[in-house]
Amino acid sequence: MNQKDIYVKNMPLPQTIQAWQEALQKINFFSGGTVTTIPVDKALGQVTATPVFAAHSSPPFNAAAMDGIAVHFGDLAAASEASPIRLAGERFVPVNTGNALPRNFDAVVMIEDVHYLSEDEVELSIPATPWQHIRTIGEDIVTTELILPEGHKIRPIDQGAMLATGVTEVQIKAAPRVKIIPTGSELIQPGEAPAPGQIIEFNSRILAGYLNEWGAVAKRAAPVSDDQKKLRQAIQSAVQDNDIVIINAGASAGTRDYTATVLAELGEVVVHGVAIKPGKPVILAIVENTPVIGLPGYPVSAILTMRLFVQEMVYNFMGMQKPAAQWATARMSRPLHSAMGVDEFVRVTLGQVGKELMATPAGKGAGAVMSLVRADGILTLPAGSEGVGAGEEVQIELLRPLTDVHSTLVAIGSHDNIIDILANQLHKNRPVIRISSAHVGSMGGIMAIRRGEAHLAGSHLLDEESGEYNISFIKRFLPNTALQLINLCYRQQGLIVAKGNPLHIRGFQDIADRNFSFINRQNGAGTRLLTDKTLRDLDLNPTAITGYEHEEYTHMSVAAAVACGSVDCGMGILAAANALGLDFVPVAEERYDLIIPEQFISDEKIKTLLDLIRSSSKFQELVERLGGYSLRDSGKVMYEQ
Amino acid sequence: MNQKDIYVKNMPLPQTIQAWQEALQKINFFSGGTVTTIPVDKALGQVTATPVFAAHSSPPFNAAAMDGIAVHFGDLAAASEASPIRLAGERFVPVNTGNALPRNFDAVVMIEDVHYLSEDEVELSIPATPWQHIRTIGEDIVTTELILPEGHKIRPIDQGAMLATGVTEVQIKAAPRVKIIPTGSELIQPGEAPAPGQIIEFNSRILAGYLNEWGAVAKRAAPVSDDQKKLRQAIQSAVQDNDIVIINAGASAGTRDYTATVLAELGEVVVHGVAIKPGKPVILAIVENTPVIGLPGYPVSAILTMRLFVQEMVYNFMGMQKPAAQWATARMSRPLHSAMGVDEFVRVTLGQVGKELMATPAGKGAGAVMSLVRADGILTLPAGSEGVGAGEEVQIELLRPLTDVHSTLVAIGSHDNIIDILANQLHKNRPVIRISSAHVGSMGGIMAIRRGEAHLAGSHLLDEESGEYNISFIKRFLPNTALQLINLCYRQQGLIVAKGNPLHIRGFQDIADRNFSFINRQNGAGTRLLTDKTLRDLDLNPTAITGYEHEEYTHMSVAAAVACGSVDCGMGILAAANALGLDFVPVAEERYDLIIPEQFISDEKIKTLLDLIRSSSKFQELVERLGGYSLRDSGKVMYEQ
Repeated sequence: MNQKDIYVKNMPLPQTIQAWQEALQKINFFSGGTVTTIPVDKALGQVTATPVFAAHSSPPFNAAAMDGIAVHFGDLAAASEASPIRLAGERFVPVNTGNALPRNFDAVVMIEDVHYLSEDEVELSIPATPWQHIRTIGEDIVTTELILPEGHKIRPIDQGAMLATGVTEVQIKAAPRVKIIPTGSELIQPGEAPAPGQIIEFNSRILAGYLNEWGAVAKRAAPVSDDQKKLRQAIQSAVQDNDIVIINAGASAGTRDYTATVLAELGEVVVHGVAIKPGKPVILAIVENTPVIGLPGYPVSAILTMRLFVQEMVYNFMGMQKPAAQWATARMSRPLHSAMGVDEFVRVTLGQVGKELMATPAGKGAGAVMSLVRADGILTLPAGSEGVGAGEEVQIELLRPLTDVHSTLVAIGSHDNIIDILANQLHKNRPVIRISSAHVGSMGGIMAIRRGEAHLAGSHLLDEESGEYNISFIKRFLPNTALQLINLCYRQQGLIVAKGNPLHIRGFQDIADRNFSFINRQNGAGTRLLTDKTLRDLDLNPTAITGYEHEEYTHMSVAAAVACGSVDCGMGILAAANALGLDFVPVAEERYDLIIPEQFISDEKIKTLLDLIRSSSKFQELVERLGGYSLRDSGKVMYEQ
Repeated sequence: MNQKDIYVKNMPLPQTIQAWQEALQKINFFSGGTVTTIPVDKALGQVTATPVFAAHSSPPFNAAAMDGIAVHFGDLAAASEASPIRLAGERFVPVNTGNALPRNFDAVVMIEDVHYLSEDEVELSIPATPWQHIRTIGEDIVTTELILPEGHKIRPIDQGAMLATGVTEVQIKAAPRVKIIPTGSELIQPGEAPAPGQIIEFNSRILAGYLNEWGAVAKRAAPVSDDQKKLRQAIQSAVQDNDIVIINAGASAGTRDYTATVLAELGEVVVHGVAIKPGKPVILAIVENTPVIGLPGYPVSAILTMRLFVQEMVYNFMGMQKPAAQWATARMSRPLHSAMGVDEFVRVTLGQVGKELMATPAGKGAGAVMSLVRADGILTLPAGSEGVGAGEEVQIELLRPLTDVHSTLVAIGSHDNIIDILANQLHKNRPVIRISSAHVGSMGGIMAIRRGEAHLAGSHLLDEESGEYNISFIKRFLPNTALQLINLCYRQQGLIVAKGNPLHIRGFQDIADRNFSFINRQNGAGTRLLTDKTLRDLDLNPTAITGYEHEEYTHMSVAAAVACGSVDCGMGILAAANALGLDFVPVAEERYDLIIPEQFISDEKIKTLLDLIRSSSKFQELVERLGGYSLRDSGKVMYEQ
C-alpha cells in the first residue's frame, strides 16, 4: 500500500466556487425552504418571504401632535400679544398628543401657548397656521405602501412599523436546517480527560455557534467512529431531514479517512481538495439533492472553510445576501511568505500604534484555536502571491470592529504571567482597554518597538559585561527612539523540574554530567541569554546539554513540556512552575522592564496601565499570589532617552 | 386649572447623564446581578463574570501535525535523492494528523515524502529537522494561561477555546431583567382595528426587541390604563423582581400623565425633562433601589431616549462596555435648522452618490416609525448649534453598515407606486440593491440631481407651452449636467373620490360650483402643475377651490385623506385610488420619466435597474396589476444632453 496514492486535488478557489454554485443551482438550493406565516410579535430576526405592505395608514386618523387645544386656525388670524383672542364653548377642544383631531378643527395650539381664563375659556396671543401640530392621516405611511421588501431580516423597528400599520402576521422563510456530524474514533466529549491521541470534540460546538449566528438552525449529531458503514448510515439519515449536512474531520488523506469514498458512493463529489491554506482537504458533495460538506478536522481550517463555502449558502437559502465584510487598510509589521498556487488566509492581530494600523500574523497553525480567539482580522494572500513585505500596505477583513482595535494596547516582547493579570484588570476598566500580547522574546520586542509596531515591549536582557538589564541593548538597537524604561517586576528564574524533583537536579552541571534532557528558549529571549551566561560561568559547552537545540517560545510552554514528561527540565520563571504544580531550582533573580516610546507615554491607555502598576493594591495582591515576584521598583523609571 | 403649570424641566444632556450615573452608583447598579455557573456548551452570547484560565494545555500532548510517519530525525541526517535511507521495524511509526507522537520519536515526515517499499519498510530521500511537523504540547495555549478576560461576551470560537483547554463550565453574569409597562387608556392590541383616538400598542414590542438584542431579558407587562392607582400598583410590583423598569408613554405633560407624580410618591425622580429633541419629557427615577425610566409615548422618541439612557445601563450591568458607535463622514444634502438649547437627534438617510456620501434628513416627526425603518444613521446637532448648512460636512452615527449604504440607489423626486415594485425586485437581486426613495415632488428631484444628491429622479413636469414633459425643465435647471431622460411609464391622473363617487364629482368645475373640499399637492409637484394647468384651462381661480392651500406630499397621502373622509377629493394617480379601493375621475394621461446623470448610467446598480425596466416580464406583470399604467415607452431614452 503506497499511501502517496491517496491524494486530494488542488482545485483553484474561483473554479471551486463556480462548480459548487452550479451544483447548488442544479438541486434548486437557492429557492430555499418552506414559507410559513407567523405573528409579527414572534418575527424578530426572521426573514420576509414576501414584500410587506401596510394594511392601514399610520397615523390612521388626523391626530394632535402636541398636548394643547384643537382650534379653527381662522379664529386666530388677528391674535397678537397686544390684542389676544378669547375662545370659549365649542370653539376649542382640549387634546393630548395622539388624540384624534375633533371633526372640522384644523389646527392645534400647544399647551405652553394657551392661557386658561376658566375651564371653558382660553386666551391666545399668537395666530395659528393651517394644520399646525397635526399629524395627518398617513403622514408616516399609507395603506398598501411597501414597508419591507422580500428577503429582509426583521429588526425591532420593522416589527413596530408592521404593527403600526395593522400588519399582525408575516410570511417568513424557513431557516436552513444544518446537521453537523463529527467523525473520528479519537474524539472524546468535553469534561473527559484526554489520553494521548484523544481529542476533545469541540469543533461541532464552534461550527453550530457560527451557523446559528448566521440564521441557520444547526444540530450536532453524536460523533461517528472511524467505520465506513456507520458513516454511510449517518449521512443517509442526515440528508433525509436537513437542508445542509456538515461532516467534520475525516477530510484529509490519512489512513482512516473514508468521507470522500462514502460520499462518492452515496452521491456526487463535486470538489475534493481546494488550493487554499488552511482548508485544502475540504469536500463539497451532493447526496440525494442535499449539499454535504466535508470540513477539515483542524478547528481553524474547519471554521475558515465553513466561512468560505457554507456561510453564503445559509444566507442565500433564506433569500438574503451574506453581510458584506468590513475591511481596513493596514501595514504589515513583518514579512510574510506564502506558498504560490494557493489562496492563503492568515489570521492577524491589528494594532493602532501611532498613526499606523499595523497587522501582525497571529500564528499559522491550523489547530491554534487561541490564534483565532485573538485575531482581529483575516489577510488573504491570493494564489499568485509569494507573500508581502514588512511595511507593505494590505487589506484586512475585520473580525472585530475597528473601534475595538483602537482601544487595544499592543504588547510585543518577552512573556510574563503578569501581562495576563494586567490584561484582565484593564479589560474591567471603563472604557475597556484590551491588551494584545505577542510572545516573541525580549529582542523581538525591541525590534517591534523599532518598527513602530508595539506600544510597549516587555524585556529582561542581561548585559553580561555591565550586569545591567536592557539599557545597553536599548542604546544599541533603539538609539534614535525617545523612550522610557519602566520597571514591571523582579522575578525568580531557575530550572523548572518535575514535581518533587525526582531526578534531584541541582543545576546545569547536573544536566551535563548526568545527561538529563533540557528544553531551551529561542534566540533573543532574555531567558536564553541567562541560560547562555550561566553555561559560560560554569564553563559548559552547549553541546554538553541534551535538547539545547529544542526551542520553545514561552515560559509556560517550557513548563508544559516538563509537566508532560517529554523533557526533564527547562529554564523559566517560578510563576510558570507554580502554575503547573512543578518544582523549581532557583538560578537567579532578574529584572523585567517595559520599554515604552515617549510618544505613547501620554496615551490614555498607557496612563491607565501605569496607574494600575503603580498604585493598584488589587494588582499587587494578584501578582504576589503568583509567587516569585518582587514589585519593589514597579512603575519606577529605570532609564530615559 | 392652568395646564401651563404642569411642565417639565429642560436639563441639559451632559448634566442629565451625570446625575443619572450618580443615582445609579448610589444604588450599586453597576455591581450587576447574580453570578451563575453554566456549561460552556450553553454559554454562547453570555458574559464572563470572572477571567477564564486554561485547565489543561492545547494540544495536551505532542501531536503529529501531518499525516505521515514518526521518525528519529537523526536517522535521516544523510538522506538524499542520490542515496535514500531505508527505515524498517521500530524506526518508524505511521501517524495521522492529531495522533500523539509515539514516545522518543522527534520528527514527522509527511506522507507525500514517504515511499513505502512494503508495509514494514519505507524509503526516504530528504533529511528531517528536529521536531518538524509536530505540534508540541501547549503550542496553542498552556494550562493556567488567560483565555478570556472578565466581562467578555462569549463567541463560538471562545467556546471552542475553553473546551479545547478543558474548561467545561464558566461563570457568567446574569442579564438585567427589564419590565416594560405600556400606559394609556387609548392603547389597543395589534390586530384590533383602531377607532379614532385609539393607538395600537406596538412600542413595547420594539423596546423589548432592542433590549433583548443588547443582552437584557425584557418582558412586557399588560398595558395600564390612565389610572394613578393602577399605575402605582404596576410599578410597585415591577420593581420587586426586575433590575430595570420602563414605563412607556405618559411622560409628557398632558392632562392624563401621572407617571412623574406617581414616581415622586414612590421614590426619587432624578430627572424629569431633558433638553433633547425628540425625547424631552423623559423621566429618570429610582424606586426601591431600582431604576425606573419613563419613556415618551412617540415611538421614535421612546427608541432614541432608550438608546441614550438605557442601552449603556444594560451593558454596564453585565460589566461590559456598550459597543462603540460606528461613524461616517457625510455631506448634508440640504440645510437643517435646529432649535438652540437642545441636543437634537435627526434621522438621516445616506447615499453614496458619486464620490460624496450625502446625508438627507429622513423626516422629523417623532411618531414616524417608517422614518426610522428607512434611516441609515443619526445626526446629532448639539445644544449650541443653530443647524447645518447644505454641503456642510457632518458626522453620522451609523444604524446600518456603510457597505449597505454603498449598495443603495438614491431616488429623490416624484413618487410613483412603481418605485415600490422596483425596490422590491431589486432587493431580490444578488448582490442586493436597495432603493432609498424620498418623495419631494418632481421639482425637488431635479434640484436633488443638481446638488449631486441622487442617482435618479422621477419627474412628470408638464411644460404648458410645448405640451412636452420634463425636457424644458431640465434645460432650464440642469443646463450643465450630462444626463439621460428615460421613460418609466405613462399613467392616468385624475380626481380621487370616495368609493362609488357618492357626491357625483365630475371634475374641477364641480368642486368650485358645489363647494366640495379638495386636498392639494405641494409646489413643485408635477401633479400640482397639472392641477394648476387644468384650473387655468377651465378659467377657475384657485381661491374658488376649498382646501387648495392644504398640501400633501404623495399620491398615497392624498388618497388616504379621501379614504378617511377628511376631504371630498384630491388629484392623484389611478394606482393610488385603486390601492385604497377608491373611485377615480380621469383628468389626463401624463408621462413619468427618470432623470439619470450620465455619470451613473454605467453604474452597476443603474444598469440592473434599467435591465429590469426594459426586459423583466415579472416587473411588467406587477405594474399592470396596479392599473392605470402604460409601459409602451418604458426604458426608452426620451432625451439626452
